Amino acid sequence: MRVLGLDPSLHSTGFGIIESEGEKLQAIVYGIIKPEIRATFYQRLNDIRIELEKIVDCYRPDEVAIENPFYARNVRTALSLGQVRGAVLVALASRNCPLFEYSALEIKKAVTGYGQAEKDQVQRMVKILLNVDDDRMSLDASDALAAAICHLNNRRLELRLEENQKKEST
Amino acid sequence: MRVLGLDPSLHSTGFGIIESEGEKLQAIVYGIIKPEIRATFYQRLNDIRIELEKIVDCYRPDEVAIENPFYARNVRTALSLGQVRGAVLVALASRNCPLFEYSALEIKKAVTGYGQAEKDQVQRMVKILLNVDDDRMSLDASDALAAAICHLNNRRLELRLEENQKKEST
Repeated sequence: MRVLGLDPSLHSTGFGIIESEGEKLQAIVYGIIKPEIRATFYQRLNDIRIELEKIVDCYRPDEVAIENPFYARNVRTALSLGQVRGAVLVALASRNCPLFEYSALEIKKAVTGYGQAEKDQVQRMVKILLNVDDDRMSLDASDALAAAICHLNNRRLELRLEENQKKEST
Repeated sequence: MRVLGLDPSLHSTGFGIIESEGEKLQAIVYGIIKPEIRATFYQRLNDIRIELEKIVDCYRPDEVAIENPFYARNVRTALSLGQVRGAVLVALASRNCPLFEYSALEIKKAVTGYGQAEKDQVQRMVKILLNVDDDRMSLDASDALAAAICHLNNRRLELRLEENQKKEST
């Protein structure tokens, strides 16, 4: 199964695609979408949409995991983040990508075991879990990969529960 | 000049196109975009984008006016509204529409003379200004038309200022 994780923000939207085979996780690609800084606000939103559609078309993820920013700090941040999320969600809907949302706490906990972990702690664990040695990985990319790992963990848990239920019923 | 006014919201995004010739304003088309209520949230955002692109392609406005929701009531409202705005802005950017933003206060004041006017007061004045007698006009559509009127007023003011400056310099 191939999962795209996303960490949307206007300046630098992190993305990361992970392929899972059984217990093994492999990073296929990761990076950031950085819209042209001199472009107008709404052109930047459209840049994010276009780049994201290219990534989906190129790597064809089965599912997408994204952070649910329910607890934005304030109204201004929420509006700004909301608009970027709108651009991202439109891109995913246009490609019929099944979407799964997780809280920041769930994502951090899935990767580090601690819901209040800092971004660099998340990155350290992401690198260990994916066996990636890359000094230039951005914190937005590792946050995106963390969302994908969180979703894959959930998927595996669901699979195990299903298998157990099958065993019990036979 | 042809201006598209917009009042974005998830359930019912108002739109209205006004053509101006000198002092005369004429409503070309107005209505609401209502995404399928049973669709997922992100499919609804994409529905708004697709419908808006159709409207722009069909009526080819020269400029677009939209309310700047700087003063959203709370973080949750701001996030929700932000996402709808993201979908709307992406549609406008994809069609290279020049975008102009106004506060709710500016729009209400432009139409009714009073920045705290209620939606039905705005609608009454919009109908008078556009000479439209339509009992079924929705309040979201009249808010959208009000944004377009506000922008056209501003444009005319700019034009007069330019003319005065020219006269003074000759």
